[in-house]
Amino acid sequence: MKVAVTVKMKYEILSSSSVILSILPFKSDAQTVWDEAFQAVPGVTMQEVPAAAGEKRMKIIDVPDAGTVSFSFSAKVENIMKTIPAEQLVDVAIPLMPASVLRYLHPSRYCQSDRLYKFAYHKFGHLYHGFDKVMAVRDWIHENVEYSGGFTTPHTSAFDTITEQVGVCRDFAHLGVALCRALTIPARYVTAYSYQLQPQDFHACFEAYLGGHWILVDATKMAPLNGMVKIASGADATETAFASTFGNLQFQDHEVNVTLLDSDFEAVDSDSTLQGYSFS
Amino acid sequence: MKVAVTVKMKYEILSSSSVILSILPFKSDAQTVWDEAFQAVPGVTMQEVPAAAGEKRMKIIDVPDAGTVSFSFSAKVENIMKTIPAEQLVDVAIPLMPASVLRYLHPSRYCQSDRLYKFAYHKFGHLYHGFDKVMAVRDWIHENVEYSGGFTTPHTSAFDTITEQVGVCRDFAHLGVALCRALTIPARYVTAYSYQLQPQDFHACFEAYLGGHWILVDATKMAPLNGMVKIASGADATETAFASTFGNLQFQDHEVNVTLLDSDFEAVDSDSTLQGYSFS
Amino acid sequence: MKVAVTVKMKYEILSSSSVILSILPFKSDAQTVWDEAFQAVPGVTMQEVPAAAGEKRMKIIDVPDAGTVSFSFSAKVENIMKTIPAEQLVDVAIPLMPASVLRYLHPSRYCQSDRLYKFAYHKFGHLYHGFDKVMAVRDWIHENVEYSGGFTTPHTSAFDTITEQVGVCRDFAHLGVALCRALTIPARYVTAYSYQLQPQDFHACFEAYLGGHWILVDATKMAPLNGMVKIASGADATETAFASTFGNLQFQDHEVNVTLLDSDFEAVDSDSTLQGYSFS
Amino acid sequence: MKVAVTVKMKYEILSSSSVILSILPFKSDAQTVWDEAFQAVPGVTMQEVPAAAGEKRMKIIDVPDAGTVSFSFSAKVENIMKTIPAEQLVDVAIPLMPASVLRYLHPSRYCQSDRLYKFAYHKFGHLYHGFDKVMAVRDWIHENVEYSGGFTTPHTSAFDTITEQVGVCRDFAHLGVALCRALTIPARYVTAYSYQLQPQDFHACFEAYLGGHWILVDATKMAPLNGMVKIASGADATETAFASTFGNLQFQDHEVNVTLLDSDFEAVDSDSTLQGYSFS
Repeated sequence: MKVAVTVKMKYEILSSSSVILSILPFKSDAQTVWDEAFQAVPGVTMQEVPAAAGEKRMKIIDVPDAGTVSFSFSAKVENIMKTIPAEQLVDVAIPLMPASVLRYLHPSRYCQSDRLYKFAYHKFGHLYHGFDKVMAVRDWIHENVEYSGGFTTPHTSAFDTITEQVGVCRDFAHLGVALCRALTIPARYVTAYSYQLQPQDFHACFEAYLGGHWILVDATKMAPLNGMVKIASGADATETAFASTFGNLQFQDHEVNVTLLDSDFEAVDSDSTLQGYSFS
Repeated sequence: MKVAVTVKMKYEILSSSSVILSILPFKSDAQTVWDEAFQAVPGVTMQEVPAAAGEKRMKIIDVPDAGTVSFSFSAKVENIMKTIPAEQLVDVAIPLMPASVLRYLHPSRYCQSDRLYKFAYHKFGHLYHGFDKVMAVRDWIHENVEYSGGFTTPHTSAFDTITEQVGVCRDFAHLGVALCRALTIPARYVTAYSYQLQPQDFHACFEAYLGGHWILVDATKMAPLNGMVKIASGADATETAFASTFGNLQFQDHEVNVTLLDSDFEAVDSDSTLQGYSFS
Repeated sequence: MKVAVTVKMKYEILSSSSVILSILPFKSDAQTVWDEAFQAVPGVTMQEVPAAAGEKRMKIIDVPDAGTVSFSFSAKVENIMKTIPAEQLVDVAIPLMPASVLRYLHPSRYCQSDRLYKFAYHKFGHLYHGFDKVMAVRDWIHENVEYSGGFTTPHTSAFDTITEQVGVCRDFAHLGVALCRALTIPARYVTAYSYQLQPQDFHACFEAYLGGHWILVDATKMAPLNGMVKIASGADATETAFASTFGNLQFQDHEVNVTLLDSDFEAVDSDSTLQGYSFS
Repeated sequence: MKVAVTVKMKYEILSSSSVILSILPFKSDAQTVWDEAFQAVPGVTMQEVPAAAGEKRMKIIDVPDAGTVSFSFSAKVENIMKTIPAEQLVDVAIPLMPASVLRYLHPSRYCQSDRLYKFAYHKFGHLYHGFDKVMAVRDWIHENVEYSGGFTTPHTSAFDTITEQVGVCRDFAHLGVALCRALTIPARYVTAYSYQLQPQDFHACFEAYLGGHWILVDATKMAPLNGMVKIASGADATETAFASTFGNLQFQDHEVNVTLLDSDFEAVDSDSTLQGYSFS
C-alpha cells in the first residue's frame, strides 16, 4: 500500500518550551518513507533523534515564547507487511527471547499485567496455541469493550478498562498489551496512521511477539491491518506519545489525513484469524 | 571500596519453569567485578544476556521439574564512584538529553509521575538548582515516609506511598523516581548490594540525571552511598527485579552477604548535600 | 439570612425512568423553609420521602417515555445558624458519641480515611484541640488544592485529590471529610445553596462533629458560611447526589439562583477561626 | 436451627483506647438470642448501643492502659429463616423502595458499583428476573474468584477483586454487593457466625433486596445458608467490622466456635436456586 500522510498540529505557547513529537513514520524493511517535509511556523530549533528503547523517531523542538506555533508534516509511505501463517505463530520460550523482546513482558504504567494473571488464565488459559490466544484476547476486547469517546482520560489504564469496558483505541490497545503480557506473550503498544479509519485521526493498536515475529493486532477492528503506517512502538502510550510537552504551552488542535496513492489496494478482513501481519 | 558479595536463593519447582535473575553486579568503569561464580543445584541450563533497556546483566535459567533448586552466586567487586560537586549538578534542558536518558522522564508501572505534577511543583517548585531539588525530594521522603515492613505489597506504587507514608526501600525508591520525573528530572530505579545495610539484604535506591551524570540517591539513608554495589538500573522494579519467574515455582528464601575486603573504607555521610556520587 | 432559591433542571428521557432529587432545603430548627413549589413539565408521578440515613429530603419521580422533562423548584428559606465559641469545639470521646454520629467515622466511597492515617497524623498530629485540627485541615486543603474545573470526574476521590491537588467544591469537601475521619473526628459531606457563590451553582462543603455540634466548614472559602442553605448531609456525594437517575435518560442542563430577601445580611469572614457555625 | 456461639478476642493495649465490637448476634423475629454473656479481663467500662444505620448491635468499650485485654462472649441463638419461592423474588421499582432500602443502592468504600455498570450489564443484562440475576452474580463470583487467603488486604475492594479474582469471604461478599447495586438491586454486606464453616471463624456474605425481602446470598458456598447466625448488615465491611479500634492497641488473636444444639438440623443445599432465605 502506498499512501500520502499529512498532519497539522497547533499549540499556544505561553513561555519558551520544548516539544518532542513522535509523528514521523517508522522506517524499516517493511515500510519505506520518502518525500518527508516538516515545517514549523514560526521557525523553531529542532533535531531528529532515534529511540533508545522501543522503535520510533523523535523530533525534539525548542519553541520560543511566541504565541501560536503550527507544525505541519507530510510524507509518502509504502508499506509491505509480511504475512505469516497462523500455525507458525507459536509461543516463544523465555530462554529463546532476545533481550530486546524480554522487556515487553514487564507491566508498564498503563498495562498492569501483574494484576491480570488470574483473569487471563481463567479466560484464555484453555487455549494452547499462541496466535489463538492473541486472537481470543482481541475478540474478547472487541466484544466486551464499547468504543466510545468521552469516558476515559489520559490516566485511564488497562486495569480500569477491563472492568469499566468503555474507551477509545488507546484503551483497547493498552488492554490488549496487558492481557498478552499476563499470558507471558511479549506485547507492545503501536501508534499508527490508518487508511480508512473513520474519522481520520491518529490510531493505536498493539503487537504481540509470536513465532519470532511482532504481529500487529487491532482490537477495535476499525480499519484494515494492511492500511496501517507504523509510527512508533513502545511499552505503552507513555513511550509513544504523539507529542510530549515540557514547559508552558497548550494544545489547540490537530488534523490527520491519509490518502491512498496506489489503485490496487485490497483491504484485509480485520476479523481474520488465518494469518498474522508484521512490520518486521 | 572492595567487597565480597554472596547470595543464596532457593525455589521449590512444581513444574518445569524459567527464571531470569538480575543479581550479577553491573560492570562499568566505576565498578570492576571479578572471581564471579554461579552455581545451581541440581544443574540447570542457563545463559547470560545483557540488557536491551536499562543497565543490567541477566541470567536466564531453565529449571526442569525437580523439587528444590538452589542458586548461589559470589563475586568480588571494586567500586570507585565519581564524586561531582553540587554546583555542577544542574537541570539538563530537554533538547540536550540523550535519547537513552529521555525515556526516564516517562511515568512507569510503579512511578506515576503523570499524577504528581502539582504536588511536586507545590513542594519543590520554589527551588532553582537541580541538585537542591533532588536533595529536597530525598529529604521529604525520609522525613515523611516511615520505614517499616509488612505494610506494602508488590503492587504498591509511588502514588500509594506518597499518601500512605510507609514502606520499604523499594517504596522509597519508587517515590523518589516519580517525584524527580514530575519535576522533569530523568530518574531511574537502582538495585544494589549495600555494605553496612542492616539487616543484610538486597537494597534499592535511585539515580537522578543532573549535569550529565546519573547521581545515586538513597532516600532511606540506611547505608553509605559509597558502600553500594550496583546491580541494575531501569524504569522501576519491573525492569530490575532480582528474579522474574515464569512457570510454576515458589520462592523459598534468600540470603545476602556483603563483606569488606579493603581496610581503609571510609563511609560517606548519607545525609550530605555537598556532592553527588555516580557510577557512570 | 432570608433567601429565595430557584432551580431548574432538564433531562432528555429515552425510556421510562426514575429520578431521585435531593434539592429540597433541609428543614431544622436552624432552617425554616416556606413557599415551596415544585413543578414538572410534562406532569410526572412523584412522592417525597425523608432520609433513612444522613439528613435529607428526597423527591422520587417516575418519568414516562416523554422526550424532554423539566423540573423547577422554588422556596424561601430563613437560616439562623448557631455560633459556638472555638474553645467549646473539642474532640468528643468515642464512648460519648451517639450511634448516629459514629457512622461518620467510617471510610466511604469517595473518602478513604483508612488510607490517610499517617498523612493526617504527620500533618495535623501536633495539634491538640479539635477545632484547631479541623481549621488546619481546611487551610491545608485551601492552600494546596487548586480550585479548577475539568480535571476531576465523578470517580475522583479524596485519595486522588490529596496528591493530584486540583478539583472543585465536591473534591475539596471529600478531602476535608476524609482527613477529619482519619483524625477520629466524625465528618459528613454537605450539599447547599450558597448566597454569593460565583458563578451561581449548587455547592458542597462538609461538617465536622466537635463538642457535640456539627460544625460547617468550607475549604474552598468561596462564599460566606452564614450564606449557606443546607440541602443534605451524608457519608459523601453518593448519599447526597442532587439527582440520582435510574433508567435511560440524559442530563441536559441546570440553573441555580439564590436571591437575598433581607436587607441586613452581614457575611461572616470565611477565613475566621474564632467560632464554629452549625445548622443543628 | 439452635446453636451455641462462643468468641474469644485478645488485644495488647499500648495506651488507653476504645474498641467498638459488633459481634453480638442481631435480634429479629427470625433470630432469637438468649443466655448472652460478655466478659472482659481485666474489667472495662462498656455500653451497648443499637445501630443508627444498618442492622447491628455495638458494644463500645473503654480499655485502660493495661497490657493484655481479653474479651469473651457466648450466646445461644435460634434462627428461623423465612423461605420465599424464587418466583416472588422480583426486582422492586425505585419508587416502591423504602428509604431504608434506597441507601443500599449507593456505591460504598469497598463496593464501587458506579464503576461496574457496563460489566454488570454485559454479563447479567440478558436476565429478566431479579432472583435469576442475583443467583447468576453468586455463581459468576463462585466460578471466577479463587477462595484463598494471603492475597488480599483490608484495602482490597470489589473493583480489585473483579479482575484479580482471588480473595476471602469478605472479598466475595463485597463483589456480590457491588454487582447487585450495579444492576439496581439494593444489596448489603452481612457478617455472621456460620455453622459448619471450615475452619471455624467469622463469616461474611450479603443480602439482596428482592420482592420486598432481604435475601441472604453466600458466593463462597462454603456453608449452609440456614446455618448462619446474622451479626450485622451494613453498606460494606466499614459499617460492620467485628472490631473497630481507636487508640493504640494491637490485635493478638481470636477464636470462634459454633456448636449445634438441636438434633434435627438439615443443611440446605448452598447451591440451590429454588428459593430465597431471609432473616427479615
